Amino acid sequence: MSKKNYAELCALLREAGTLTSIKSLLGWDQETYMPDGATPGRSEQNALLAAITHERRTSKRVGDLLGACEQDKALTRKGSPEAANLREIRRDYDLATRLPGDLVAAIARTTSQAQHAWKEAREKDDFAMFLPWLDKVMGLLRRKAECYGTPKGGELYDALIDEYEPGATAREIEAVFTPLRARLTDLVREVKQSGVKVNTKCLKTRIPAARQHAFGLWVLERMGFNLAIGRLDVTTHPFCSEVGPADTRLTTRYRDQHFTDALYSTLHEMGHGLYEQGLPKGDGTAKSLFGQPLAEAISLGIHESQSRMWENFVGRSLAFWKWALPKSRKFLGDALEGCKPADLFAAVNTVTPSLIRVEADEGTYNLHVMIRFEIERALLRGDLKPKDLPGAWNARYKDALGVIVPDDARGCLQDVHWSFGLIGYFPTYTLGNLYAAQFWETINEQIPGLDAQIGKGQFAPLLAWLRENIHRHGKKYRAGELCERVTGQALSPEPLMRHLRSRASRVYGVNEEN
Amino acid sequence: MSKKNYAELCALLREAGTLTSIKSLLGWDQETYMPDGATPGRSEQNALLAAITHERRTSKRVGDLLGACEQDKALTRKGSPEAANLREIRRDYDLATRLPGDLVAAIARTTSQAQHAWKEAREKDDFAMFLPWLDKVMGLLRRKAECYGTPKGGELYDALIDEYEPGATAREIEAVFTPLRARLTDLVREVKQSGVKVNTKCLKTRIPAARQHAFGLWVLERMGFNLAIGRLDVTTHPFCSEVGPADTRLTTRYRDQHFTDALYSTLHEMGHGLYEQGLPKGDGTAKSLFGQPLAEAISLGIHESQSRMWENFVGRSLAFWKWALPKSRKFLGDALEGCKPADLFAAVNTVTPSLIRVEADEGTYNLHVMIRFEIERALLRGDLKPKDLPGAWNARYKDALGVIVPDDARGCLQDVHWSFGLIGYFPTYTLGNLYAAQFWETINEQIPGLDAQIGKGQFAPLLAWLRENIHRHGKKYRAGELCERVTGQALSPEPLMRHLRSRASRVYGVNEEN
Repeated sequence: MSKKNYAELCALLREAGTLTSIKSLLGWDQETYMPDGATPGRSEQNALLAAITHERRTSKRVGDLLGACEQDKALTRKGSPEAANLREIRRDYDLATRLPGDLVAAIARTTSQAQHAWKEAREKDDFAMFLPWLDKVMGLLRRKAECYGTPKGGELYDALIDEYEPGATAREIEAVFTPLRARLTDLVREVKQSGVKVNTKCLKTRIPAARQHAFGLWVLERMGFNLAIGRLDVTTHPFCSEVGPADTRLTTRYRDQHFTDALYSTLHEMGHGLYEQGLPKGDGTAKSLFGQPLAEAISLGIHESQSRMWENFVGRSLAFWKWALPKSRKFLGDALEGCKPADLFAAVNTVTPSLIRVEADEGTYNLHVMIRFEIERALLRGDLKPKDLPGAWNARYKDALGVIVPDDARGCLQDVHWSFGLIGYFPTYTLGNLYAAQFWETINEQIPGLDAQIGKGQFAPLLAWLRENIHRHGKKYRAGELCERVTGQALSPEPLMRHLRSRASRVYGVNEEN
Repeated sequence: MSKKNYAELCALLREAGTLTSIKSLLGWDQETYMPDGATPGRSEQNALLAAITHERRTSKRVGDLLGACEQDKALTRKGSPEAANLREIRRDYDLATRLPGDLVAAIARTTSQAQHAWKEAREKDDFAMFLPWLDKVMGLLRRKAECYGTPKGGELYDALIDEYEPGATAREIEAVFTPLRARLTDLVREVKQSGVKVNTKCLKTRIPAARQHAFGLWVLERMGFNLAIGRLDVTTHPFCSEVGPADTRLTTRYRDQHFTDALYSTLHEMGHGLYEQGLPKGDGTAKSLFGQPLAEAISLGIHESQSRMWENFVGRSLAFWKWALPKSRKFLGDALEGCKPADLFAAVNTVTPSLIRVEADEGTYNLHVMIRFEIERALLRGDLKPKDLPGAWNARYKDALGVIVPDDARGCLQDVHWSFGLIGYFPTYTLGNLYAAQFWETINEQIPGLDAQIGKGQFAPLLAWLRENIHRHGKKYRAGELCERVTGQALSPEPLMRHLRSRASRVYGVNEEN
């Protein structure tokens, strides 16, 4: 019977995965093409689908099958795919069964409405418009965290971050962030003291969105993103969404100037998308692994390592521009006439404290993340009231980055996350940067001449390495375990600091060592 | 308890309606933006959602509540909204409970794949590629019809058409179609004999799709289509889809020449859309009527009466062009320089036997429908084998319209319906034309000066009339009943023939009487 139980369990998970992917389509559509007036109905659709999915994920049948499989020695051999699958199915089931269905539906309904309110509030720079929704969302998330339960000696926040980064805690993250912040702050100061003014003229040229879009699509394809099972659209906030087992949708946003903002958003989301396309999901029909943990991403930190790697380690390298700049003419015309690869390399590796996280440079990016981590932790604890968010936000930006926030649209309303009900999500961005840097050093040891390959637009060896070492495993290993397997080391801030100092030394002449 | 039962029943229906609307989004997305490679996964999504929706629609709880409400005198007073609702809920429930869940899922899965196959087959003009899917779909539809059950003295086809046009039968339709066909054939012959060659030069000018789109959107808005709760996109086959209670999405398709093809497709789908926007659905949240029959369209025939009215009775009138032609310059530039309203009126009212139904003129359109009615009826009966479809198609086109079908792409592969599993749907197009003509005569009696209003772009009185007399009632009345209430007469072919002869007499000088 064991095989039959396991097969039935996997079939039920596939159905739950199918429902989850439909919910992703609702979300993608809401951000891309849905007419504004459809918001209340969309919220109902989200709530109902979330409730049905939750009901299925927590059904007694799933629990019974899981229990039976766990008793079966043939399925629980250490190191076997089935054992890893069952470990993660148990984890998901235990988490899911702690949430009452009405809370799941309420979160889905409220965040769907809150997203809409956030979008309007951001457009109108009107925090008051968003405040009641933030209040509601925080209340629901507190309830959610309480249902999950706080680990011993931990805090509510841990229960939420665990959903995105299994096993991580606020205290551990703080322990990583605090020294990293000091070293980043040093770097920013040294850059400032260098007195070097980078010429960023090549970013100021105006390039119509349609041309940028064509160029972005071309780069995506060359890097290995499969557009037969993917798309690229335009939204307020770039994201990557799995709307089906073989349907990976990226979004980006264009401005006339600073074409690299959109390009790097595109490459970032593509990094997520390549991971998703590399997971062994199959096509979603009966025999595919779709819906099983073995076909799912490990954690958001690992997910982000993929997006940041393509965005920064590949996309902001000199080699990338050596390849991309001459090719770009076909799409961008003579917009970059007179710019050299080295000019673009320097321009996209400036270190300048700024207001917007998704447009921040690599040197200051993690400081943006740390601010959000502190604030959302305080919001959840109740130490910070939602109404006091703008003040707290602006004070921290002045303190950590030395910038004055001119309005909430460019301040605490800039990110979509809280309206989506995502608390505990932001720190995974910095974890992703750390993982990316550490993976990158190993990759460069294992693929000789990688830089030269990138300079020729040859991305296949890199993608193959990622597929082999990271993507194909799905959730077989936990994040820390994967990191040790791949790099031989536990996660450390050193590779990231080496990377940032190396770039800053080439652009600003600061010390490579610190 | 009666109020409570009724409220719970309506809440369950609202949930089922919400699920149905999500399924519409899956369909809309598949036709608009879904990447090709996502087809298998989309089929699974469709199948699962169809199964869940069916399960809910046929649940014992719905049956129990319905039964209890039917015993309740307060809810069954003749003529009351509740009584009408219960009548239709009973009908839907009895139909739905006759279908086994696995059949519903199989139809959803198969038609989702068949649509994809149809699209490719049509592009490649390769009937053999579509044939196995047509075979499968016909087999499933035969099973469906058998489950519904054949009315006494009727045939399998009746069971399917009843889903789209409650109460209609193949024999009745044949009885309407046969004399109508003779009168239409006469008209086409007289037009030919008139020897008049209409100058259609004004349709041949090239207009870029983006300009046509902007013009189409502008006309939609002026006619009263609410774009805050609707959209217009581009697909292979134009359609109107309700992807939420307040989310009506139209599609159209553009060619460089013959801009009126896209325009009339747009107006046609808008007619459907205005009906949907006029139904008293509310926003889909707890207190709205969404999901109840009182907020649903009566039948496809009535739906089609709305689309054909806006497309033909309004859109192809001289008055329309008197208004639209000068306004079009802002969008189309000088593309129509030198054309007069009367030129456009004549050009869009030519009567010329042709190949493509959706581009057919009003005079020949119903002949296209009749061919499909005969063929699908024969396919379902088994009198015609799917493999013999192209031959049968081509022979009928030669016979009824005198045209030679050059390839299957412009022959039996032109319509999406069969791949969607829609059999019994086509005849509603002609019923729609008949209803539209009959309504139009009444409307002109009741709105004095309507033609002059259209000539000034004043569509609000017409839309208000439709809202008041047709849209707001939802399914309160059956189609025939509504027709009698509104026009004082049973459905008759006379108004349509009067309309067609009037137009043909103005363009070709044929006799107005027949």
